[in-house]
Amino acid sequence: MADKNSNYYIDGILSGNRRILAKTITLIESVLPAHQKLAHDIINKILPFTGKSIRLGITGVPGVGKSTFIETLGLYLIKSGHSVAVLAVDPTSVKSGGSILADKTRMEGLSCKEKGFIRPSPSGGTLGGVARKTRETLLICEAAGFDVVIVETVGVGQSEIAVASMVDFFLVLMLANAGDELQGIKKGILEFADAIAINKADGDNIEKANKAKNVYENAFDLLSHIVLNSRPKVVTCSAIEGSGIENLWNIVLENHKKLGVSGELLIKRNVQSVKWMYELIEDGLKEKFYNTPEVKTMLPKLISDIEAGRIAPNIAAYNLLFFLDKTN
Amino acid sequence: MADKNSNYYIDGILSGNRRILAKTITLIESVLPAHQKLAHDIINKILPFTGKSIRLGITGVPGVGKSTFIETLGLYLIKSGHSVAVLAVDPTSVKSGGSILADKTRMEGLSCKEKGFIRPSPSGGTLGGVARKTRETLLICEAAGFDVVIVETVGVGQSEIAVASMVDFFLVLMLANAGDELQGIKKGILEFADAIAINKADGDNIEKANKAKNVYENAFDLLSHIVLNSRPKVVTCSAIEGSGIENLWNIVLENHKKLGVSGELLIKRNVQSVKWMYELIEDGLKEKFYNTPEVKTMLPKLISDIEAGRIAPNIAAYNLLFFLDKTN
Repeated sequence: MADKNSNYYIDGILSGNRRILAKTITLIESVLPAHQKLAHDIINKILPFTGKSIRLGITGVPGVGKSTFIETLGLYLIKSGHSVAVLAVDPTSVKSGGSILADKTRMEGLSCKEKGFIRPSPSGGTLGGVARKTRETLLICEAAGFDVVIVETVGVGQSEIAVASMVDFFLVLMLANAGDELQGIKKGILEFADAIAINKADGDNIEKANKAKNVYENAFDLLSHIVLNSRPKVVTCSAIEGSGIENLWNIVLENHKKLGVSGELLIKRNVQSVKWMYELIEDGLKEKFYNTPEVKTMLPKLISDIEAGRIAPNIAAYNLLFFLDKTN
Repeated sequence: MADKNSNYYIDGILSGNRRILAKTITLIESVLPAHQKLAHDIINKILPFTGKSIRLGITGVPGVGKSTFIETLGLYLIKSGHSVAVLAVDPTSVKSGGSILADKTRMEGLSCKEKGFIRPSPSGGTLGGVARKTRETLLICEAAGFDVVIVETVGVGQSEIAVASMVDFFLVLMLANAGDELQGIKKGILEFADAIAINKADGDNIEKANKAKNVYENAFDLLSHIVLNSRPKVVTCSAIEGSGIENLWNIVLENHKKLGVSGELLIKRNVQSVKWMYELIEDGLKEKFYNTPEVKTMLPKLISDIEAGRIAPNIAAYNLLFFLDKTN
């Protein structure tokens, strides 16, 4: 693939060529240095054509109906004239062998649409690696003309924070579980949520969902004094029946408009971008350090020495750092 | 000071010599490489004599009565046969010129006691630097025989997290403010709090304090499902009158005993120590990188290029990292 120059890919992306878009993403996901170099060149050159989409992050535990929700929302958006790319951050995919969005039967309707584009989570190993590739893919999709980019993640570890830090709006899908409506919101997620949607609000479930909505809203009233910067909106919806989807999208749109007019959107994205640069730098420094053969050999011994009280943590750290300084 | 060898300091510390203890802490706080080296040597050698104290972290916003509280608690502990060292983490001290615990009139009673030792926050610049010095000082104080080490911090930035990650028990002091009992608990602190003490529960304030206690307890019932691993204990006290102090100390003791018996205390401290090593390594890597003259020159330009959309964050990061690789 590296035999084509970056202009080939850029022209393809900007003209909305699906095949070339997919090939570019494959370059981004490749570990080969030549592919990486080409991918960087492409990303830098398409930069002026990015930034025009609404970036929507969606999370929710397995069973919450995430695929159906994204399918329903995506089809609604396409019907309303939008074009929609769906990406995924799933650091578990490398372990489980599976991957969210990898299952071909998922989002069948959306994937057949000309204005829909679905890309499974890259099996990138670390969360940092997966998140990086997804961020780069997001930019490519924007340049290809998608005006809504949805980034989904499973409710695992730090992946929500990674997704929240690359989108304009972060949505948490939940279920109304009678008896314990509040469990299932993971520690820390609320800080990032712009909205909570209680899904499967259909049939016998409607009443339960409305009750859960009240419980959440009351909790957020209380929480907004303690741990939240702003209060997430709470809505109910049924992805299967399609109810509540338009209402939810209007909340996203309204928020986007508000942030756009006030200039907060640009600030938010700039803060995300600069933070992203720092993250990449620091990941790079750590990767290089911890992959040094001598560090790899010394580290386990130092950790067991710390745990046995044979060496102070600061001495262990300075030994490693000083050792590396000497070898450089 | 570097003319004495480490054995001089170690013998002094282990025999409880105050003057030598204070001189050792001055070594720890010094930026001179010879002092740093000597301090490291001392810390590593006294390591077998550390770990025997109860490490108590205390935070609270200005006005909450933190000094009076620590004075009252410290005098109570000394009367009960303990010896108490009080340290401080205050990264604001370098900016304000002042420092918590620096004011000589603070904790006058405690500082005059033979079994009390008070050390102001080092003016270490960064939080990381101040926290590092305080951690090392904590170990030295333990080796000197103090069986309670109190680490206090002001409610600023990340300093609570730094303190919570070096103690066995983390206490948040609060006030009963009619009307908005919940404000004042900073986002994220609750995650680390083992107990909340509502201070100034005296005179006309008793009723208000008890009401606030109920409000907090109800909020924690709700929060424990959402954002907390465990529910902090809530108590009231009056540092001026001395009421509630014994009760609070019994909670600390009980917790310490429980963690000790179950083995959780050792695990908690080992996790803290290993995390500390990693923090120091990563701080060291970053410090070295960001202090490289070329990086210092390139970074501001790259940030403004990112913000103006002239360069992608990943390219900026790789440019810097790659640049450094070439020069090493």
